[in-house]
Amino acid sequence: MSQLPEYAIIVAGGSGSRMQHEVPKQFIEVAGKPILMHTIERFYEYNPDLRLIVVLPQQQLNTWRDLCRKHGFKIFHMAVAGGATRFGSVKNGLDAVQGEGLVAVHDGVRPFVETTTIKAAFEAAAVHGSAVVAVSPKDSIRELTPEGNQAVPRANYKLVQTPQCFRTGILRRAYEQAEQEHFTDDASVVEQLGEKIVLVEGSYRNIKITTPEDLVLAEAFAKEQ
Amino acid sequence: MSQLPEYAIIVAGGSGSRMQHEVPKQFIEVAGKPILMHTIERFYEYNPDLRLIVVLPQQQLNTWRDLCRKHGFKIFHMAVAGGATRFGSVKNGLDAVQGEGLVAVHDGVRPFVETTTIKAAFEAAAVHGSAVVAVSPKDSIRELTPEGNQAVPRANYKLVQTPQCFRTGILRRAYEQAEQEHFTDDASVVEQLGEKIVLVEGSYRNIKITTPEDLVLAEAFAKEQ
Repeated sequence: MSQLPEYAIIVAGGSGSRMQHEVPKQFIEVAGKPILMHTIERFYEYNPDLRLIVVLPQQQLNTWRDLCRKHGFKIFHMAVAGGATRFGSVKNGLDAVQGEGLVAVHDGVRPFVETTTIKAAFEAAAVHGSAVVAVSPKDSIRELTPEGNQAVPRANYKLVQTPQCFRTGILRRAYEQAEQEHFTDDASVVEQLGEKIVLVEGSYRNIKITTPEDLVLAEAFAKEQ
Repeated sequence: MSQLPEYAIIVAGGSGSRMQHEVPKQFIEVAGKPILMHTIERFYEYNPDLRLIVVLPQQQLNTWRDLCRKHGFKIFHMAVAGGATRFGSVKNGLDAVQGEGLVAVHDGVRPFVETTTIKAAFEAAAVHGSAVVAVSPKDSIRELTPEGNQAVPRANYKLVQTPQCFRTGILRRAYEQAEQEHFTDDASVVEQLGEKIVLVEGSYRNIKITTPEDLVLAEAFAKEQ
């Protein structure tokens, strides 16, 4: 474990629309417990002293408090209100990070991240400043072009997951920039500074629960554990 | 349904190594039946008159025959021996296709393809000559570069699935070419001729069963059906 203080900003901004579900996806229960609680548990397992910041839409903070009470969820964390976009939400989470250290930004709906992956990402960030978890695509990839589309070599691409870990100073500078449309994750925001991103091998189990299919897989994974 | 005769070449070349399983992945049972049988059933449901060609490694043909007997599997199909590579296997399957028509090439371990997807792919191939099923990536994408890696706009990429459907004439010409390393799927082989590839929207359910995680999902999907 690195000697620097470690933070995790767990971003859960879902409204439930893509999931065809009334409950925001981070609150959907898997194995009897909201997905977001599973996610927090993974980081707690990695390091019980990690400083956990959970970012939720303002209007979901009360619901979250109620859920924690109902489920007897005791893992210490700070809940903060998100912004209008993911960029705004991470920025708000980052406001709660004090001093120097390392920060992992993680999707609230990636509850199957392994503690070994979290560890590897923090370690790489301690050395290199920026480290992002990614996996190789299993499928062939085609690039859309003005003329149609064309095959591109799959070995040249990586699918990005979270956690994405950074030295606090780098992430703060990154989020002082104005938001841009191509900022789809933290790595793209940090890269805009000219920082290099180190890739850390992820796992195909570390799925982002986005569609109803993912929920089926999540229940199956949870049952295995 | 198109008026042209329709074929499907279902390619199952797996040895089981990536699956950490002794049984080749196409023979692993899901919901009590080898994956390959589920896959064949999807095509049969789409069109009971479809001419089905199943390509298997030479040394698995006897096992397959035994499995069909054991499971009382009666869907009419032709089983042919594959080649040393996927390219060689498709080529062998194509030898069993006679005259003019349409051919779908499909992974033997994609048992959850929807009949509507198969239909859309055949229809697009009837009009355009070449049609390939693909979905949008859910994750951010990074491209590996000589200097490291960089974010690329995810909206510009598609992850390719199967079926990949073609007019027989086009696919035959494509597979008369010498095999090349960048031929990762049929679309890339056909594209080498200078043919345009039309993309047909796939489904996130249409997974290729490749890793143990996929097998968990497959069991869950099969239970739903």
